[in-house]
Amino acid sequence: MTDTFSFQLHATDGAARTGLISTPRGEIRTPAFMPVGTAATVKGMYPEQVRATGADVLLGNTYHLMLRPGAERVAELGGLHRFMNWERPILTDSGGFQVMSLSGLRKLDESGVTFRSHVDGAMHEMSPERSVEIQGLLGADIQMQLDECVRLPCTDEEAERAMRLSLRWAERSKRAFEAQPKGRALFGIVQGGAVPRLRVASAQGLADLDFPGYSIGGLAVGEPQEVMLAMIETVEPHLPAAKPRYLMGVGTPDDLVEAVSRGIDMFDCVMPTRSGRHALAFTRFGKINLKNARHQNDPRPLDETSDCPALRDYSRAYLHHLIRCEEMLGSMLLTWANLHYYQDLMRGMRAAIAAGTFADFKAATKEGWAQGDIPARP
Amino acid sequence: MTDTFSFQLHATDGAARTGLISTPRGEIRTPAFMPVGTAATVKGMYPEQVRATGADVLLGNTYHLMLRPGAERVAELGGLHRFMNWERPILTDSGGFQVMSLSGLRKLDESGVTFRSHVDGAMHEMSPERSVEIQGLLGADIQMQLDECVRLPCTDEEAERAMRLSLRWAERSKRAFEAQPKGRALFGIVQGGAVPRLRVASAQGLADLDFPGYSIGGLAVGEPQEVMLAMIETVEPHLPAAKPRYLMGVGTPDDLVEAVSRGIDMFDCVMPTRSGRHALAFTRFGKINLKNARHQNDPRPLDETSDCPALRDYSRAYLHHLIRCEEMLGSMLLTWANLHYYQDLMRGMRAAIAAGTFADFKAATKEGWAQGDIPARP
Repeated sequence: MTDTFSFQLHATDGAARTGLISTPRGEIRTPAFMPVGTAATVKGMYPEQVRATGADVLLGNTYHLMLRPGAERVAELGGLHRFMNWERPILTDSGGFQVMSLSGLRKLDESGVTFRSHVDGAMHEMSPERSVEIQGLLGADIQMQLDECVRLPCTDEEAERAMRLSLRWAERSKRAFEAQPKGRALFGIVQGGAVPRLRVASAQGLADLDFPGYSIGGLAVGEPQEVMLAMIETVEPHLPAAKPRYLMGVGTPDDLVEAVSRGIDMFDCVMPTRSGRHALAFTRFGKINLKNARHQNDPRPLDETSDCPALRDYSRAYLHHLIRCEEMLGSMLLTWANLHYYQDLMRGMRAAIAAGTFADFKAATKEGWAQGDIPARP
Repeated sequence: MTDTFSFQLHATDGAARTGLISTPRGEIRTPAFMPVGTAATVKGMYPEQVRATGADVLLGNTYHLMLRPGAERVAELGGLHRFMNWERPILTDSGGFQVMSLSGLRKLDESGVTFRSHVDGAMHEMSPERSVEIQGLLGADIQMQLDECVRLPCTDEEAERAMRLSLRWAERSKRAFEAQPKGRALFGIVQGGAVPRLRVASAQGLADLDFPGYSIGGLAVGEPQEVMLAMIETVEPHLPAAKPRYLMGVGTPDDLVEAVSRGIDMFDCVMPTRSGRHALAFTRFGKINLKNARHQNDPRPLDETSDCPALRDYSRAYLHHLIRCEEMLGSMLLTWANLHYYQDLMRGMRAAIAAGTFADFKAATKEGWAQGDIPARP
């Protein structure tokens, strides 16, 4: 174990990279997918199960946790790790994205944002300093600067104003973060909408501030995949190669493969968990909607070759039945299956990059998805 | 493994008994508590987890399973055990109780009942023969005769009419059951409302038919505990001592202890699972309502001495938080904790009966419940 935060690049294959983030709470193999534990729980999963899928790190949402149960309460109870019974690394977002998407936003100015809780309507203030303070109270190993994430599409002027504000907030966040124990890391967040010159300016501005890691924010907010990928390609050369790069809120399995091949090291997304609760399974053969009545007599499991019980030990007929009856076990099994598949994909990408066979892996993976669900027995 | 159904009494202590039911699918240690798997799932639990709590046998509800996914479909898919990934014994009820409590009951006569599904309004017929046929299609190891369960209170005439009908249905069920593979068992069900002479007549009539086990039905339907216990005491001497006795739909931890001390061997109840989904935990120190705000800063687990992760590894503050946020994990953990506690109680009773110390065990257990929840730190 280390008492500092560090990143080692182990291998590259084209722009794709594999490496290891070391933190006092454990190591994170990259490229890494972080399951989302919004309210101090990955919905429908026991923490030891999440770990067993291969997750090295979870994401917690500052906005949700500051409202319930409250950052000071979590701190009194020994921090987020103990609270949720997850002793490995936790990354928290700044809360900014959800302040802007979930709450009744009241006022945004240079100092920060004032917003109304979507839970009980109470007013809260969030500044770069308060966001970092909350993340510190939670005890997050990797923290995010407060930023302003504009909706796409937007005018260039609007994207630039938000990007410049985010840069100034990056500096304030970094200063506030200095009060925290060693071994934690604060990442800066690249903004700039879909405007290449703004993205470059943002990345350069942040690199000048010398963060231990860089996030790319403001993507995966509804724009086409090619816009997202173009922005990654634009930003990548301006991010220090020796530091991890985190693409926030992404994505589909295809997004992950495409972003890794463009040099991204870290991801988080609610897709595997949320889809699992909505009857959708991600597998080697693409997406399978278990709500569909065609599964009702199908004795095959989702993937009989898998070592995950959720994929291997339950028939499609049974999963369909659970979903039809709105049984919790349906959501539990499909969430488990999806998180397992996502981690399997990350494992596969890491191994392929290390072996210098990433292009082959990518092609074979896409071929599997295109092949589609195995037809039912005649 | 055996290829027949049998019951061995190992020890008695007063009227309390401990023994072993052997079936081709595994052994059932008695007294046994059977978790309820209504729709082919114990709500919120993986089957291997249910087993790990100490459950030897599950209960499936014929009424629910005949409607969804349908008995013929389950049979085509290899039977209920394979369908729900539970290879150990399964007991099914006859469907009669839920036909009468959940469905739009249309007609009951000598031949059987016609009812309207609560799911889709479709009409279904249920006779003693069809109930046994469905339970056979499901592949249940222990099956129940169709009976008529009257609501309490009712007139003696009504209780007698239903009891006599149930006796005639017992005979028809037994005849229909002869078509099934060896190694399965059909239990007769004692009825007779709260009228001792009717209960005795029912028990004697069933004993004359020589079933491999006897259920006591029509109790735990809202009557005071003393009425239920009095009926058990009335019936017990008339049930063959060499056969298992199953008290249907019971009950609270206190009901279990009191019924075991009166000679009952088997139980099922939704209480531990349903209560778990409603924030109520059963523990050595009685019931704990985790919804209560007094838990919000309480770092103590439900029972730090337990070997069940749900009881040991999560603080009351965290459980309270999960419930407040309506997170699935709250229901999952409390269901797990409750099933573990119920099985712990059964283990304790079996050991105490074997050791001849059941009275002491009962007194100590009740003392724990009376002691109440440990006070929070000052």
